[in-house]
Amino acid sequence: MSKKIKCAIGVDLGGTNIKVGIVSSEGKTIKKTSLITEAEKGPDNVINQIKKGIYSILSGNEIRLKGIGIGAPGVVTLETGTVQNPPNFPGWEKIELGKIIKKEFGFPVHVENDANAAAVGELIFGAGQKYDSFVMVTLGTGVGGGVIMDKKLFRGEFGAAGEIGHITIDFNGPKCNCGSFGCIEAYIGNQYLVNSIKNELPAHPNSLINELIEQDYINLTPKIIDMAAQRGDEYAVSVIKNVGRYLGAALASVSNLLDISTFIIGGGVAGFGKPLFDEVVKTASSRVLKPLQNRVKVLPARLKNDAGIKGASALVYYITG
Amino acid sequence: MSKKIKCAIGVDLGGTNIKVGIVSSEGKTIKKTSLITEAEKGPDNVINQIKKGIYSILSGNEIRLKGIGIGAPGVVTLETGTVQNPPNFPGWEKIELGKIIKKEFGFPVHVENDANAAAVGELIFGAGQKYDSFVMVTLGTGVGGGVIMDKKLFRGEFGAAGEIGHITIDFNGPKCNCGSFGCIEAYIGNQYLVNSIKNELPAHPNSLINELIEQDYINLTPKIIDMAAQRGDEYAVSVIKNVGRYLGAALASVSNLLDISTFIIGGGVAGFGKPLFDEVVKTASSRVLKPLQNRVKVLPARLKNDAGIKGASALVYYITG
Repeated sequence: MSKKIKCAIGVDLGGTNIKVGIVSSEGKTIKKTSLITEAEKGPDNVINQIKKGIYSILSGNEIRLKGIGIGAPGVVTLETGTVQNPPNFPGWEKIELGKIIKKEFGFPVHVENDANAAAVGELIFGAGQKYDSFVMVTLGTGVGGGVIMDKKLFRGEFGAAGEIGHITIDFNGPKCNCGSFGCIEAYIGNQYLVNSIKNELPAHPNSLINELIEQDYINLTPKIIDMAAQRGDEYAVSVIKNVGRYLGAALASVSNLLDISTFIIGGGVAGFGKPLFDEVVKTASSRVLKPLQNRVKVLPARLKNDAGIKGASALVYYITG
Repeated sequence: MSKKIKCAIGVDLGGTNIKVGIVSSEGKTIKKTSLITEAEKGPDNVINQIKKGIYSILSGNEIRLKGIGIGAPGVVTLETGTVQNPPNFPGWEKIELGKIIKKEFGFPVHVENDANAAAVGELIFGAGQKYDSFVMVTLGTGVGGGVIMDKKLFRGEFGAAGEIGHITIDFNGPKCNCGSFGCIEAYIGNQYLVNSIKNELPAHPNSLINELIEQDYINLTPKIIDMAAQRGDEYAVSVIKNVGRYLGAALASVSNLLDISTFIIGGGVAGFGKPLFDEVVKTASSRVLKPLQNRVKVLPARLKNDAGIKGASALVYYITG
């Protein structure tokens, strides 16, 4: 008889893809698959895609399944696993996703907001294992986050806590997609960042970036900035430092409010690495209240590939221990 | 035999005065006294003053004492009731104040940071009774705060959470006493507010404020601004609205991060009343994320006189129920 290892299924529900994986209690992805979300076809179709993904990943595996974790965009109510108004999911208002998936498969199902799931992922499997309290920050198209206090997710009144991206660093600053002004996301969210570089590049004709993008702005990505900076391009380095300064200012507000001084940073822009992290620490340390000054720590997220799947599966281990 | 009512002692340890009172479980101050802190004479003297205050308030009263609560400036460690580096208390590094007072009187003693005690005061006796979660904001010389989540104080890693005053609203803004820039305190803390009005008043020679202060800036206080605004002075009204806008911007960041949308505001500047509160709600609502927009509530603190004593005594009821 084969020895069955204890596993959880993680479902990373994204606007474009649904990623499903089996993750061991040590955080190893044993098997994974990916399906198109087809969000535009409406919620029933999305739910069917999720089911299809779970069935396909389960078939032919002898595992001892502890449960299914789902990381979803939007506001999530824990008790019923209800997902409310996920952005870019037309026709999806309030769906009791947890209940539906539990009914289909019979296993315990834990649904959580995807940014919160990422924080739980780092807590259970990643850089957060060593810390009781930290704030997870994800730098991508948006700037997301999750707050872990005493090994527990801080969810707020309706599970929407941790919106680091919409901390204002300048109340008269650039307009943010959320409708407010000067949110940190409006400075360092991928698109905002790329746009501001587009505006500035003409003033830096000798920057390596121009060469790397072959004079075509469509090729401009955070990755390109990183390449230019690594080759010593001054303007690219200044871009990264500015990202660090903006983020450091936002995180100082977060630290002062929460009295939590460890930050774990993931997502594409976190790929800027040490130059970014150094600047974040420097800025945040210089701006937080005195008792916090020597405590500020900024660490890279440890879950990289499959972070979404692992975060979702971590929800199962987080709840059941 | 006299009927003994259940009571707690509240000690409000301030830099200038120590206020001590007996507070009933309904939040009524039964008796109170005040002593000079004499902080400059060092911690032993301050501790003696506290003891003296408690002895004097206890004498001649037939009460059933549940315990003693102390609200103190600085960082407080709950288990030992240790008060660390309270500002303006020379020579006071780390004092196990809770232990010392417990040893002297034999009753349970609960020490907490004064801003946190104010939040607990509103939770147990004040405007927060009706809410599971809210953020307390105190507008005075400094801008302080405390976070209540699910009827519990959110303390952070070392009990210093809730420093609303040092949320940045403009990372390039005016220098704050804390060393950072653009903290909300650097806009609306009493002294900053008064100073900025001093700078602006010459450009408003017809403002009633000039008359009310009898052309002497020493008479300039938030109370005067309020009087002028109530008499229709345009400049005074604009000052209050600006305070509301600044504060609203800071509270929007707080709401987005914590997913808590009820705010209770106390302290002198809160005396601006409805014009201030309306502007805070308007600004915060326009800046928070969509799901929060209709939920933002800003209420005046209910504990006014004896707020410090009541907040401190509330610690006893908060812990013991």
